[in-house]
Amino acid sequence: MARVSQEHLDARRRQILDGAALCFARNGFHATSMQDVLKEVGLSAGAVYRYFGGKEELIGAIVGEVLEYLRATFEAAAEEAPPPPPDVLVGRALGQVLSRKSGAPEGEVSYFPRLIVQVWAETLRNEELAALMNEGYAKVRVAWVKIVEGYQEAGMMRDDIPADHVARVMVAAAQGFAAQLALFDEVPVEALEDGLRGLMSMGRPS
Amino acid sequence: MARVSQEHLDARRRQILDGAALCFARNGFHATSMQDVLKEVGLSAGAVYRYFGGKEELIGAIVGEVLEYLRATFEAAAEEAPPPPPDVLVGRALGQVLSRKSGAPEGEVSYFPRLIVQVWAETLRNEELAALMNEGYAKVRVAWVKIVEGYQEAGMMRDDIPADHVARVMVAAAQGFAAQLALFDEVPVEALEDGLRGLMSMGRPS
Repeated sequence: MARVSQEHLDARRRQILDGAALCFARNGFHATSMQDVLKEVGLSAGAVYRYFGGKEELIGAIVGEVLEYLRATFEAAAEEAPPPPPDVLVGRALGQVLSRKSGAPEGEVSYFPRLIVQVWAETLRNEELAALMNEGYAKVRVAWVKIVEGYQEAGMMRDDIPADHVARVMVAAAQGFAAQLALFDEVPVEALEDGLRGLMSMGRPS
Repeated sequence: MARVSQEHLDARRRQILDGAALCFARNGFHATSMQDVLKEVGLSAGAVYRYFGGKEELIGAIVGEVLEYLRATFEAAAEEAPPPPPDVLVGRALGQVLSRKSGAPEGEVSYFPRLIVQVWAETLRNEELAALMNEGYAKVRVAWVKIVEGYQEAGMMRDDIPADHVARVMVAAAQGFAAQLALFDEVPVEALEDGLRGLMSMGRPS
């Protein structure tokens, strides 16, 4: 049997993860079976189980990948002095995540916002996923605290407010916006950037 | 049979709604049966079905009540000139909703954030609930647009940004914060107010 290239292995892994993410976005984690995933990706059980032991591993890999991307993005931003402003940072990160996950079919609405809401619901009853989410959220928040401290040190933001509270709200704005995309209408990420800019323009309330 | 007072009827209705909300928050709408609700509220089927025809009516009443409260709160704020600032408005509204739904048992964490996430997941697969959520969200957003226009008219916020985009982000911040309460740690609503104040202090980015 011919040895397959790393490139081929990576592409196959990617294909499986994207197909599984689409299934989970559609029906939630609980109501999705491995059979559904196999059908979606068009591969045999043998081919898929070579990469992932089951649904738990799939959801863990999907969620871990996004959290890792967000951590790296915000840690890089925290290194800049001063860091890019919130509207730019949040918009860029969410835009990247949405477009990475928008999938192949032209004109199809990104399934990623639905996936997020499904993952949250599953997190409420799945301790393993809850641990993964908690760890990822903590790392993203730590990076955001550094960013907010950067704003405060540069005099861009009043410095008598706990950086952690601002960090929570930055993450919350992106989370809530993603929930709206899943639940209501599709609006471009620019709306989130605009809204943050509007809020940022409100001056220095005491 | 003695006639029961309106007060008694209202209290009974409240008891049923709160018990059902607690069940839905715990296990989600789908995995909760009417039997679970009856058990939770300690009433007979006859007593409960006198008020609500089934789970659909219960979730509709619970969601409708919260959306109506938010609509009324933000419409009232929109009438003020200028409206109270975002940190005050959002914090007050979310705080009220959380405390109304925190339930009786002393020291128990509010189940309302969990309920929100469960309702969102159910909204993805329940067209009736989706219609209700859409309608309620639209009304809240319309009220928020008026509030934002009030800020802009009062010179409190730059006026070259679509009010609708700011409205979406105000709602998103509260939604995302509620999701964090459900998924991660419990922090007081003051953290949300602080974070908004921090963001608001960033000046007038162009």
